[in-house]
Amino acid sequence: MPEHLELQMILSCLTPLGWLERNPAYKEQLRQLTARDLQTYGFLGYPVLQAADILLYKATAVPIGEDQLPHLELTREIARRFNFIFKTDLLADCAPILTPTPRLPGTDNRKMSKSYNNTINLSDSEDEIRMKVQKMVTDAKRIKLTDPGHPEECNVYSYYSVFAPDLKADVHDWCTNAKKGCTECKTILAQRLMDYLKDIRARREKLEKDKDRVRDILNEGARKARTIAKQTMQDVREVVFG
Amino acid sequence: MPEHLELQMILSCLTPLGWLERNPAYKEQLRQLTARDLQTYGFLGYPVLQAADILLYKATAVPIGEDQLPHLELTREIARRFNFIFKTDLLADCAPILTPTPRLPGTDNRKMSKSYNNTINLSDSEDEIRMKVQKMVTDAKRIKLTDPGHPEECNVYSYYSVFAPDLKADVHDWCTNAKKGCTECKTILAQRLMDYLKDIRARREKLEKDKDRVRDILNEGARKARTIAKQTMQDVREVVFG
Repeated sequence: MPEHLELQMILSCLTPLGWLERNPAYKEQLRQLTARDLQTYGFLGYPVLQAADILLYKATAVPIGEDQLPHLELTREIARRFNFIFKTDLLADCAPILTPTPRLPGTDNRKMSKSYNNTINLSDSEDEIRMKVQKMVTDAKRIKLTDPGHPEECNVYSYYSVFAPDLKADVHDWCTNAKKGCTECKTILAQRLMDYLKDIRARREKLEKDKDRVRDILNEGARKARTIAKQTMQDVREVVFG
Repeated sequence: MPEHLELQMILSCLTPLGWLERNPAYKEQLRQLTARDLQTYGFLGYPVLQAADILLYKATAVPIGEDQLPHLELTREIARRFNFIFKTDLLADCAPILTPTPRLPGTDNRKMSKSYNNTINLSDSEDEIRMKVQKMVTDAKRIKLTDPGHPEECNVYSYYSVFAPDLKADVHDWCTNAKKGCTECKTILAQRLMDYLKDIRARREKLEKDKDRVRDILNEGARKARTIAKQTMQDVREVVFG
């Protein structure tokens, strides 16, 4: 849909470079992903494209993880600047929608990201899930099985919060009183994770076999999106070029 | 035409920020146009859009002024990088075509640019041309009419080179021997400039009255351009996304 790039171009011309250079996610990724050359013009402007993706649909609320808050804040600043410069209220203000667990780190304790290869995917097999959970980084201070652990500093414990909250008290007891080791704790988490994902994975597999239906859903969504995007861009052009 | 922005986006992702930050035209405009806020993301990336504008049509030669050489060099570097990364020769190498007068400064001696408001336009009336020529900056060292001038340092003299080369020897004599003052020299230039532009202005006025024909010419040009642009983008997508 060409509207995304068109809106990005217009927003680019009113986005100060400093806003992008100070973006914490940008700085973190430059630090973390040293194997890839990210010092490019396109990568610096990724948040402007995200802003266009949101503003094109006049979204007033966006479900995000906590780590995306700076990006959403940038989107709001860009929208306010656009509205101020062109004396309009065309671009909507958008608020974040956070879940009770606004940030769940990846299996290596870094920000969860496909680029970091530290995610558990809905398409993963049970074996893959078991393997990924076993490799999760736990409390570095618990070295021997008999050492008491610190669940608050353990990422496995934060996964329990989301996927097996009923076991949290037990896990806390196993860990702080050295009743169970990390391997066993992870085996139990992996099982609960698989239970949690079971229905989702079943629906996913069913849909995978019905490619026509998937295509229809995508086409219908694209059709709806296109109608809104076209209208927004018409209004934006009117406001910008008169 | 959405192909321009699509190619710009792809090229953006392989253009190092440093190439753009070091661009001399960018640095000069930041210095000169202090009244406008140019420290934006979009302005920094303007040369990438220019590169897309050229590469989309597989241009092998581009008629430019000398001041645009760094931009064309950047275009060639971006094309080479694209071809190297994707192991292809899809994007063409393009050479500059310079005229014998590769650089003609604006009426204020700065780079000629609409942004600097120092141009003489094909659409200017005779009065406007006369006025603009009279305001041209001349040899700063020639203060009184009886002072000998330095034509090599005078922008009016460089305009004679292009628009009235047959008078160059005379102008040189008038100036260095203080035979004529700058006002008279400019009056003569303005007249020659109007003679030079006469036919062009007449054709322009005729076309202005025949909007249908103009629209037809533009549409036909756009149609031709679109065919090439669509084909290039199809090839680019194939090479980039497989």
